[in-house]
Amino acid sequence: MSFDFSHAYAVIMAGGGGTRLWPLSRKDSPKQLLPLIGEETLFQSTVARLEELFPPQRILVVTVEEQAQAMKSQAPQLPEENYLIEPAPRGTASVVGLAALALQKRDPQAALAILPSDHFIRNVDLFHYLLKAAFDVAADDYLVTLGITPTLPSTAYGYIQQGAALNGEYKYPVYTVKSFKEKPSEEIAQQLLRMGGHSWNSGMFIWKAETILREIQKQMPALYSALNKIGGAWDDSSAREATLKEAWLDLENKTVDYGIMEKAEKVAVLPAGGLGWSDVGAWSSLFEVLLPDMRGNIAANDVLHLAHETNNTLVYGGSSERLVVTIGVDDMVIVDSGDVLLVCKADQSQKVKEVVEHLKKHRQERYL
Amino acid sequence: MSFDFSHAYAVIMAGGGGTRLWPLSRKDSPKQLLPLIGEETLFQSTVARLEELFPPQRILVVTVEEQAQAMKSQAPQLPEENYLIEPAPRGTASVVGLAALALQKRDPQAALAILPSDHFIRNVDLFHYLLKAAFDVAADDYLVTLGITPTLPSTAYGYIQQGAALNGEYKYPVYTVKSFKEKPSEEIAQQLLRMGGHSWNSGMFIWKAETILREIQKQMPALYSALNKIGGAWDDSSAREATLKEAWLDLENKTVDYGIMEKAEKVAVLPAGGLGWSDVGAWSSLFEVLLPDMRGNIAANDVLHLAHETNNTLVYGGSSERLVVTIGVDDMVIVDSGDVLLVCKADQSQKVKEVVEHLKKHRQERYL
Repeated sequence: MSFDFSHAYAVIMAGGGGTRLWPLSRKDSPKQLLPLIGEETLFQSTVARLEELFPPQRILVVTVEEQAQAMKSQAPQLPEENYLIEPAPRGTASVVGLAALALQKRDPQAALAILPSDHFIRNVDLFHYLLKAAFDVAADDYLVTLGITPTLPSTAYGYIQQGAALNGEYKYPVYTVKSFKEKPSEEIAQQLLRMGGHSWNSGMFIWKAETILREIQKQMPALYSALNKIGGAWDDSSAREATLKEAWLDLENKTVDYGIMEKAEKVAVLPAGGLGWSDVGAWSSLFEVLLPDMRGNIAANDVLHLAHETNNTLVYGGSSERLVVTIGVDDMVIVDSGDVLLVCKADQSQKVKEVVEHLKKHRQERYL
Repeated sequence: MSFDFSHAYAVIMAGGGGTRLWPLSRKDSPKQLLPLIGEETLFQSTVARLEELFPPQRILVVTVEEQAQAMKSQAPQLPEENYLIEPAPRGTASVVGLAALALQKRDPQAALAILPSDHFIRNVDLFHYLLKAAFDVAADDYLVTLGITPTLPSTAYGYIQQGAALNGEYKYPVYTVKSFKEKPSEEIAQQLLRMGGHSWNSGMFIWKAETILREIQKQMPALYSALNKIGGAWDDSSAREATLKEAWLDLENKTVDYGIMEKAEKVAVLPAGGLGWSDVGAWSSLFEVLLPDMRGNIAANDVLHLAHETNNTLVYGGSSERLVVTIGVDDMVIVDSGDVLLVCKADQSQKVKEVVEHLKKHRQERYL
């Protein structure tokens, strides 16, 4: 069914902490609020990418109190009331429920795209095209997800196995979902790529508010009853806030993938190739996002990098006054950031998490 | 001949610039003036090592104006008049001549050990023993050099080929010198080690003032005549200084090795094994000087280093407040120093010189 796009909304999920880009991302300055690529923050790029498709009135942000102020000043064009504040993090299922409730109160015919705030997408036109196609599928009561066609046997993402092609006059190939698979081992990931028909789970979802609320009612009755309570107090803003705070405390922490998608009946996937998508989930992902020089080196964030017999190395600078010299260095990530210097083999940059865990355990708060 | 040690002097050569430990060593803070190993500077360690054998009155320093003040404040126990100032760098042959002249004026029976200011010696007792043995050989009119028994086929040093064992009642085996060889290729260096009978040229020399001055007269007459002029004005300090300045301008820039030693007749070498000697000639040499942990890592200069899957890596810090994290790093040197960060494969640390040349060529004065 072709969807009336005036009922389409974008909901940016922006509450996460994220330690994978430590030492740049910190407790008080999460990844999405950093100007990681160019001058805009990832959050600002996400908003800008959506503004070409949605008027600001139809772009919402769900975040936590600690980050709301920074977001409002980074994207002042979004109406104040479009910022929904989660009293505490309770997983993406709760976020999805709150956003659907808010939109249904506003527009009973609302459909929404749920989008992370900290991803990179190179081909914005294709992204827009896919979103529109996805809304058409969502109009037929599907829970739709954008899958990313894998380019390597990554162990960093969950995989979506597609089933039969959907009948329908859609602008893009759409499939039913056979199964959601958790992050695989490298061996399994290689099998999945050989088999074909598998996409990375990007965490981008499109559905009607009505459809997802019905599904929550079926699969997560506790969340549904909390949303009902909050909905009952919706029209009185102080009562709404109090009810939200109270109801939120008792919620289970569940992701929408495992809380809802896995057992839902009408789930569809659009397998997107060529989006130039990255979740910017580790330092090494900047090699996909930024353009290296002919030796594979990247000097990011205005750093002065003097590379001598150096290949495939990313230098992320902290100051344009500081000279970073590398000699005989290959496949390395160097992050020169204030009170921490990180030197890391590129293919091991996901181990930054382990270092952050170690620092937490030993209460090195100043570096977190 | 057993030498009357009350006529023994130590002369520290301390004028060099040295770029091989850049970015720590700079134009205005050469290697010997830095607290590279522990809290003392290399110059201070050199003085301390000699003070156990010589009273301060018999320890001299030859340096340039730019460094004299720093040295005097680092070693205030040496008498002011023991600092000889070279008007301009003219190679080690000139330094050696000036030192011999100064000592002969003071003590016609003087013998002197010429010693670099920026070397490391672990076994100081053995060093003292060898110096005393060398003075005994020098008493028999030999130009004596301390050779270092090679521990690997280094291409960073000249080699000394020993000839016949010297007859004489010496405390340590001494040999005539068959030849001096310039820094060899790796292949040649391997041959020399297989052959045996070769030592590294350490730049440490011992001789009587009278012997070396006679040799200068024979082989470097222009230098000898300059020294004669300076000697003629010696007793009037302002005339001495003026004559020194004038005479120095015209001197050839020559090393004592190639200017004198190669063609001298009575040259002897003491091949020293087990000294624990290092010329600290590149960042990688700190692996010989400092004690690595069980994974081969060294955290130098009070740096806070968090090593995760890291081996044989030196981190030289600039601040005890800064955390340096390495992940998956092997055989690397990391120098975190003020306005420059150096990340360098350990076995390529001699290429720091090439970087310094590049910066000079492009007039990046601030980093030199």
